[in-house]
Amino acid sequence: MKRGRLITLEGGEGTGKSTQVRRLASWISGKYEVEVKVTREPGGAPGAEAIRELLIAGATDRWDPGTEALLHVAARREHVLRTIRPALAAGRWVISDRFFDSTRAYQGLAQGAGLEFVDGIGRLAIGTLRPDLTFILDLPIGMGLARAESRGTTNRYERMGEAFHERLRRAFLTIASEEADRIRVVDASGSEDDVAGLLESEVLLRWPIP
Amino acid sequence: MKRGRLITLEGGEGTGKSTQVRRLASWISGKYEVEVKVTREPGGAPGAEAIRELLIAGATDRWDPGTEALLHVAARREHVLRTIRPALAAGRWVISDRFFDSTRAYQGLAQGAGLEFVDGIGRLAIGTLRPDLTFILDLPIGMGLARAESRGTTNRYERMGEAFHERLRRAFLTIASEEADRIRVVDASGSEDDVAGLLESEVLLRWPIP
Repeated sequence: MKRGRLITLEGGEGTGKSTQVRRLASWISGKYEVEVKVTREPGGAPGAEAIRELLIAGATDRWDPGTEALLHVAARREHVLRTIRPALAAGRWVISDRFFDSTRAYQGLAQGAGLEFVDGIGRLAIGTLRPDLTFILDLPIGMGLARAESRGTTNRYERMGEAFHERLRRAFLTIASEEADRIRVVDASGSEDDVAGLLESEVLLRWPIP
Repeated sequence: MKRGRLITLEGGEGTGKSTQVRRLASWISGKYEVEVKVTREPGGAPGAEAIRELLIAGATDRWDPGTEALLHVAARREHVLRTIRPALAAGRWVISDRFFDSTRAYQGLAQGAGLEFVDGIGRLAIGTLRPDLTFILDLPIGMGLARAESRGTTNRYERMGEAFHERLRRAFLTIASEEADRIRVVDASGSEDDVAGLLESEVLLRWPIP
């Protein structure tokens, strides 16, 4: 059985990741005639969803940033072991709404735990698994936060303030600049259809259909 | 202000740690005329107590052992940053019912995540802090589990079976053998008074009263 592919969508709050994950999954399953597993972080496995509750609720200063990174990595380990690896081994493609670049951008850079710390625990906890392709959905932060707020209740990360979200946006762009092979930055300010088209053409470029 | 001292009590289920922690704290505060902070793991800080709930409840195979170690270490980081370090800096002595040797013995050795893994994430997450003195309360596992069960409801670790608890006892003894300076193994099969007397005389030996 040929191993499946892992695609991750990353970015700040309100950049449209969840919508694009669903659209991309549907498009890929038709275009490549493969089964696609849609998943998300933090979460994607029963234990990981329980950890998610500790992360997205409560006061913005509830956790030290290093603790918060450890919790994300613990959730990721469950997600990788119980959901992602089995799906890839069964030949499915996996599309995840967030993965380790979020921990690197949020806790590592924007919250200040440091990339070295985040990457160190990450290597110990999930080994060498890396996405085959990562999209960072980029948006001016005013637009992203307005979209996030229009959904109603805001989670802990959405409440972290504009200066935080500016640091976060820069963090994602820095991360992208260091791994140009794996990561594509996508302008998410266009229509849903426009953004979906950008993702689809990038996937086709990466994996041409014979 | 002179830094306080950190003493940890370790051991399997039902070895009498909680009782001895309370007795030792009371004895030390009188004998050395110091303030003593009694605390426990997993827990000892608000976030850490929330993580504790994920660890002590539910099915015994709820977590991969590596994930479980990450959760313990995340809780420990909160405990160290918000409770232990401030207390030590204020000159208090801290006595903790479990600390990192439990993660090494339970997840590292008895559950199979490996000492290297547990020590690796531990170094990243709590740095160089080490107890000044550690007691391992040792008991034949039949006695310990009977005591634990006599308390009524059993937690997730108490339900892990006799073979597990045999591995756990050996794990603690292995850990003790590698750090004879820091760790004292105490026979916990005697009366409460006997065990308390053993701990007190060891503390007096370590820190003589002028």
